[in-house]
Amino acid sequence: MLATGIVVEYNPFHNGHLFHLNEAKRLTDADVIIAVMSGHFLQRGEPAIVDKWTRAHMALAGGADLVIELPYAFATAHAPQFARGAVQILDALQCEYICFGSEEGHIAPFVHSLDTMNTHKKLYEEKIKCSMQEGLSYPNALRIAYDEISRTTDEPLADLSEPNNILGFHYMQAIKEIRSNMMPVTLERKGTHYHDEALPEDSIASATGIRKELFATDVAHVQSFMPSSSYELLHQQPHQSWDHLYPFLRYMILREGPEQLASIADITEGIEFSLWRAAKEHATFQEFMKAVKSKRYTWTRIQRMLVHVLTGYQKSTRAQITSPSYLRLLGMSKNGRNYLRSVKKEVTLPVVSRAGSHKDPSLLMDIKSTDIYMCGMQREPGLDFKTPPILL
Amino acid sequence: MLATGIVVEYNPFHNGHLFHLNEAKRLTDADVIIAVMSGHFLQRGEPAIVDKWTRAHMALAGGADLVIELPYAFATAHAPQFARGAVQILDALQCEYICFGSEEGHIAPFVHSLDTMNTHKKLYEEKIKCSMQEGLSYPNALRIAYDEISRTTDEPLADLSEPNNILGFHYMQAIKEIRSNMMPVTLERKGTHYHDEALPEDSIASATGIRKELFATDVAHVQSFMPSSSYELLHQQPHQSWDHLYPFLRYMILREGPEQLASIADITEGIEFSLWRAAKEHATFQEFMKAVKSKRYTWTRIQRMLVHVLTGYQKSTRAQITSPSYLRLLGMSKNGRNYLRSVKKEVTLPVVSRAGSHKDPSLLMDIKSTDIYMCGMQREPGLDFKTPPILL
Repeated sequence: MLATGIVVEYNPFHNGHLFHLNEAKRLTDADVIIAVMSGHFLQRGEPAIVDKWTRAHMALAGGADLVIELPYAFATAHAPQFARGAVQILDALQCEYICFGSEEGHIAPFVHSLDTMNTHKKLYEEKIKCSMQEGLSYPNALRIAYDEISRTTDEPLADLSEPNNILGFHYMQAIKEIRSNMMPVTLERKGTHYHDEALPEDSIASATGIRKELFATDVAHVQSFMPSSSYELLHQQPHQSWDHLYPFLRYMILREGPEQLASIADITEGIEFSLWRAAKEHATFQEFMKAVKSKRYTWTRIQRMLVHVLTGYQKSTRAQITSPSYLRLLGMSKNGRNYLRSVKKEVTLPVVSRAGSHKDPSLLMDIKSTDIYMCGMQREPGLDFKTPPILL
Repeated sequence: MLATGIVVEYNPFHNGHLFHLNEAKRLTDADVIIAVMSGHFLQRGEPAIVDKWTRAHMALAGGADLVIELPYAFATAHAPQFARGAVQILDALQCEYICFGSEEGHIAPFVHSLDTMNTHKKLYEEKIKCSMQEGLSYPNALRIAYDEISRTTDEPLADLSEPNNILGFHYMQAIKEIRSNMMPVTLERKGTHYHDEALPEDSIASATGIRKELFATDVAHVQSFMPSSSYELLHQQPHQSWDHLYPFLRYMILREGPEQLASIADITEGIEFSLWRAAKEHATFQEFMKAVKSKRYTWTRIQRMLVHVLTGYQKSTRAQITSPSYLRLLGMSKNGRNYLRSVKKEVTLPVVSRAGSHKDPSLLMDIKSTDIYMCGMQREPGLDFKTPPILL
């Protein structure tokens, strides 16, 4: 059986995701689609709109065969770490291909970009360091360094100012780093741009646009952009957002004070004082964010810090987690189950169906982040121990 | 001007408190009544039903002239530390008398108790240690040790199984320890017993009974047990309880885990594991408490631990706070203001009218505990910086 891997958040699963999933299957002639999906907190530093089992259910209903959780430590990390965690999981599961959506749509420019960057690694890194010392945000520093090394080649390179191209680039870099045999395939993102907030006329919208519409009006308004299975699941659930979690975040910042905050992952350069001042002043998450936002930090980077503050993710814990150490099964189809059986001996990491008395720091963070996510939903803790994988 | 000090929580201020205040004035022929009042968290490990400024207002309306906050570090401590903090503040304010309510009602038995205990200090302490090693709770261990040394004398001793007698005893012990010239006066508590929960026929009820009735039925039901000024203030406010703060406490325990909890003041002997298990299981404060309660710990002692968990009061912070280092003015009458002016030169601690940019660890805890109390009331932080003393 041939397996193709995809890396997803499904926040929520919509028609664009369905298209990507079917195309991944078609382009690679896959028997099995394996989705590595983030848990309750996402790469943009936000809680998922519905819990991970509901989103795994959406994925299976949409045609995925296995849904494996991307652990918290990778799902909420910056792009290189996020990509490496996902690639390592797909590699451990013996995927032949990884298929990602990109603005670029072709694999060759990514290969050229990777080659060029490896050739001029030192120049590239120095340039980034220099720009950041001048006070630029990390994405802006990357862009400038990349422009610099682009001038050294005539080959067409991937445009790394586009968010999906960035992730694609890092998937390919990770494949190289871990010496995986997985082959990368890309397809052009259909419809709107990743961050577009306006809903389009046709049936494909961005997840950002869907969430915005849903929070501003009603879940019924987004029905036409999602498979009906996905819509039904979304419709039945309360929807999580930073607004529900902000009272806990604020309480935490007030309790901890700047000194304690400084030990949290990603908190650097005295931003803890800014967080503390803003928590004392502002009663809503939006106001809080506006007060903290500065030229130096992107909105996403700040939100990721806040997720870590909320969950108590310490720098010392992060330092212990270098690679995925387990495969957390969130859901599977019959086909997926057969695949798992067939590759059992080759799979290089233990499969975890339900959390038990594990001591793995990464799995403990997954469990804790679920519990804290549920605080904002008035649902009980310990769901990682109680919830079996979704079978469809 | 002659000042008499009293030690109060006023949770809320009721007819029994009014009686005590008037009697304290009458018995000592005082010109000024100085109330040392706990802030937002109380000695039984509970949040106050209304904020400290409202309670200071009640006190002034009831005849107090100065209301000084008993800092968090003393207000939420066990009886000896609580009493010592209060006595030191009254002593610093040049009180001639301290007047406390007691079940005993006469001062002589307290004097005998103190003498006997000092004479047999070693025996007493050994007996306590021994009983606690056998698994008895602290109050039970005290009781047994006290019974033991009581046999060494024929003088009538105070019955230290009664809660107000215990506090009274510790006030007198503190006076001795700090070599204060304050004279102790006691009067018998009128009406019901401290912890009585049933409301009596006449107009004096315990604060416990009043709170219970108020939460079970309606604030109107307790009107006859309070001065009308106090009732009006209570009536206008939302009422705080552990139920409002439990979501934050639960989130905190889930976030911290047992290892981090172990650094919190009063958390000893592995109770952190019990707290963690109970937080994972129980959705209400009452259920949580029932799960944690054991023979070893009194309800009060557990609640005090929980207050410290909620506010993040570390063992290391507590170790820094040995004596009150400021006089936090919550309210004053004209008479109180004149008194303060007249003793200005003799007052041995700085008067703080509003929190500023202080670094005192005790004052920082007062400010933080206000902020955290307000999290459960959906009110803004920083009230200690913004709220001037109540003038009446």
